[in-house]
Amino acid sequence: MKRIVSGITPSGDGTLHIGNYLGAVKQFIEMAKTNDCFLFVADLHALTTIQDKNQLQKNVETLILNELALLGDLNPSTGSGSITFFRQSDIRLHPELQTILNNVTPLGLLKRAHAYKDKLQKDVMEDEINLGLFNYPILMAADILLYKADLVPVGRDQKQHVEITRDIAEKFNHIFKKNVFKLPDAKIPKNVASILGTDGKRKMSKSLGNIISIFESEEVIKKQVMRTYTDPTRKHATDPGHIEGNMVFSYLDHFGPSYAKASEGKSVEDLKELYRAGKISDVEVKEYLFSSLMNYFAPARKRYEELKNNPLKVREILEKGAQKAKTIAQQTMEEVREVIGLKNKYSFQLSDVSGQQLKNEILKHLPAQAGVQDDNFITIDEFAKVEVRVGKVIQATNVEKSEKLIKLTVDFKNETRTILTGVRSYGYTFQYFQDKQFLFVTNIPTRKMLGIESQGMILAVDGLELPFGKHGDKKPEFIQVDNLPIGAKVR
Amino acid sequence: MKRIVSGITPSGDGTLHIGNYLGAVKQFIEMAKTNDCFLFVADLHALTTIQDKNQLQKNVETLILNELALLGDLNPSTGSGSITFFRQSDIRLHPELQTILNNVTPLGLLKRAHAYKDKLQKDVMEDEINLGLFNYPILMAADILLYKADLVPVGRDQKQHVEITRDIAEKFNHIFKKNVFKLPDAKIPKNVASILGTDGKRKMSKSLGNIISIFESEEVIKKQVMRTYTDPTRKHATDPGHIEGNMVFSYLDHFGPSYAKASEGKSVEDLKELYRAGKISDVEVKEYLFSSLMNYFAPARKRYEELKNNPLKVREILEKGAQKAKTIAQQTMEEVREVIGLKNKYSFQLSDVSGQQLKNEILKHLPAQAGVQDDNFITIDEFAKVEVRVGKVIQATNVEKSEKLIKLTVDFKNETRTILTGVRSYGYTFQYFQDKQFLFVTNIPTRKMLGIESQGMILAVDGLELPFGKHGDKKPEFIQVDNLPIGAKVR
Repeated sequence: MKRIVSGITPSGDGTLHIGNYLGAVKQFIEMAKTNDCFLFVADLHALTTIQDKNQLQKNVETLILNELALLGDLNPSTGSGSITFFRQSDIRLHPELQTILNNVTPLGLLKRAHAYKDKLQKDVMEDEINLGLFNYPILMAADILLYKADLVPVGRDQKQHVEITRDIAEKFNHIFKKNVFKLPDAKIPKNVASILGTDGKRKMSKSLGNIISIFESEEVIKKQVMRTYTDPTRKHATDPGHIEGNMVFSYLDHFGPSYAKASEGKSVEDLKELYRAGKISDVEVKEYLFSSLMNYFAPARKRYEELKNNPLKVREILEKGAQKAKTIAQQTMEEVREVIGLKNKYSFQLSDVSGQQLKNEILKHLPAQAGVQDDNFITIDEFAKVEVRVGKVIQATNVEKSEKLIKLTVDFKNETRTILTGVRSYGYTFQYFQDKQFLFVTNIPTRKMLGIESQGMILAVDGLELPFGKHGDKKPEFIQVDNLPIGAKVR
Repeated sequence: MKRIVSGITPSGDGTLHIGNYLGAVKQFIEMAKTNDCFLFVADLHALTTIQDKNQLQKNVETLILNELALLGDLNPSTGSGSITFFRQSDIRLHPELQTILNNVTPLGLLKRAHAYKDKLQKDVMEDEINLGLFNYPILMAADILLYKADLVPVGRDQKQHVEITRDIAEKFNHIFKKNVFKLPDAKIPKNVASILGTDGKRKMSKSLGNIISIFESEEVIKKQVMRTYTDPTRKHATDPGHIEGNMVFSYLDHFGPSYAKASEGKSVEDLKELYRAGKISDVEVKEYLFSSLMNYFAPARKRYEELKNNPLKVREILEKGAQKAKTIAQQTMEEVREVIGLKNKYSFQLSDVSGQQLKNEILKHLPAQAGVQDDNFITIDEFAKVEVRVGKVIQATNVEKSEKLIKLTVDFKNETRTILTGVRSYGYTFQYFQDKQFLFVTNIPTRKMLGIESQGMILAVDGLELPFGKHGDKKPEFIQVDNLPIGAKVR
């Protein structure tokens, strides 16, 4: 299983068409079945060109909705892979790594980058090019290296940027004498010629008006299908038609009509046969294509509507993705800070004492067992972010099919929540919780277990070590607070 | 009161000499008496040249020790100013803002920067210059703009970089149609000619070997003083001597000898008189200078030793500084993200619904009163960072001279801590706490109140609204947990 990292810039208007689907999304879904995939919306990259708040916001959110609808299940049931989907700017470590990588990137490397050279050729004055564009291969390197990607799926035009990433990684590893970064390989999808638009001439692109949409209304998509380029030499439906260069058949090769309800068992080959023989009209094959598309994308279109009406669900997916991405990115950054000498944040080092000696020195001054270690200090702000409330358990039941879970219905005065706790294995029964008040964390993302959504977490402390438990397995003791006002927030 | 921001790069070996003191530190201390000063160790900037872990670490920590010893009290008792001292890399927002500002910075602006042009002239190939150096005016702009500085004290050679900062700020404000950034002014210290070294010829600089140290041993400093350039035309102590260009007198003008024990009431003018008249030897005036320096820097040298032996204290200062800096930087970044369109992290925006409408939509799905608002979700990691423990109050007393504070001595099983709580005004007496167990946050930085260090915080919830309180002023209720194991950590 390989780690695959890919970013999508929310350019255009953020919508995806069938060209995007065939050219990128479809392969990504394939890869995700057997690989550990990271896919992010590259909103920081978008800033090089989109410098308008509303447009950026709209594009990002449209793209998120489009991608999520197409990706479907992020943990594909076949194989063992998954897709971690997140928004780049949610992981503050991308810019930090960029700033650090700046120092191992020579100007010359960036000057050779295509994106920059292309820009120069569009007769823009060099001096007016913004640093965001000039620098973007470094941010891209940070995007990739943070997650120690094995593979980066890119089009041919982007291969060079993966090579720049390799150069930067190699230079960093060399200068700081440790192989912190993995050198990623570019993965250029085979057998995917770039998808031509409905004009049959140019690459499918929103700005050329030659797309077939995925999430537009049926009317819009039907119109797009109907104006698709077929065989200009054919005047009547009874004329023999040509298949080569006929975009309807080119799309049918991908999408149908086995998917089409109207196909009556006909394969694409059957349709081609009929078309060549002048036994089927242009309109008829377009009807097949339309019907095929509608069927092919039916699950995605359904998900699109669901997600559109459930922003909370989208938010949850983004949060979960960010959390996972952050964990990995943080590990990498720890290593980076360590090798460049920024790590020992507060282990103040006397000039004649080694780092470890000093650490011991500091630890001597610290409260011994309280577990206050080097990096563990938090600020008041960080504390204030945690929301802990007094809740009263108004109902407690065992969760069927589980040997551990107890389902609590908890009153927080102005609302009632379902909160799960898996403590039957410690000897707790649901009766223990009934009608008592405890402390709960109420602002962590909800979590689904056995189909039940847990909307918070009950707090506990470690109690006695269990005689039958593994070493260190202690019985949790709950924080009973029967005298405090229900719903009150701990501060 | 103005906001003043300054960074010091830990170049050289991180030590400061009397030239640094007179050229920068002294003015900064002056400014701090009446201004709100921010001073940071620019370790991210150091990466452009220092690419060796041990050297960076040593330099940074030496510089921190030197600066703190010289600055003395960070909250000067005269005037109303203060110095917030922190380490740049502790505030992760500097790189983030840099990455964003890249997009409003044209290449041409950086090409005109002195640092880059200087580098080019030292016949380095342009293509080999690293982006860290080329870009550094943008990181510097981020350093300044994050804190909305009014003034940036710089030498003449750095004035241009403050102008670049203004250009970037203006461009950003213009593009995003909001005056998020304040345009800072460069403050070039008047009447401070650059301090010449002991050779009397070149600017004082460690690499030229013409410095007088501040924190070296007396022997080293004495040697440095003894080799200071005086009057080469003078052969004997009885020859009339010249004062002009005589470095000993140049230094004495700043440091003595009113500070010198040995001065016997002589002023610098008296010494000059004697010197001109051939009535005092070179060695004697050097003795005066040495003695003056030792006295002048005695408090700083004492603090230096104290800090060197108390890394925990240094760590505390850095933490406190970082906390304050972070609060301000975070506010700025909130505004930045808002105007560029990165703010609504998880308020997923439907394409046909305005932001506010959508926010309401989301809030409808959220637990009503539980206060779970847009940005308030935390991750499990964030929760895990907060350390809350069960502690038993073994002693409680009123704090003298305070009408509110109660001092708790709290047993956490493996250690005892002092924790203050200011709740007498709510009707609590110290007796209430005696021998009871409560929950405490044990990993927030210690805080000094009325000379007593509070090593944690007791948790409470809002109880009844007080009849005599201001609107919303509720009586805190403490979380009594007498049955839980002392020292146990909440999880």
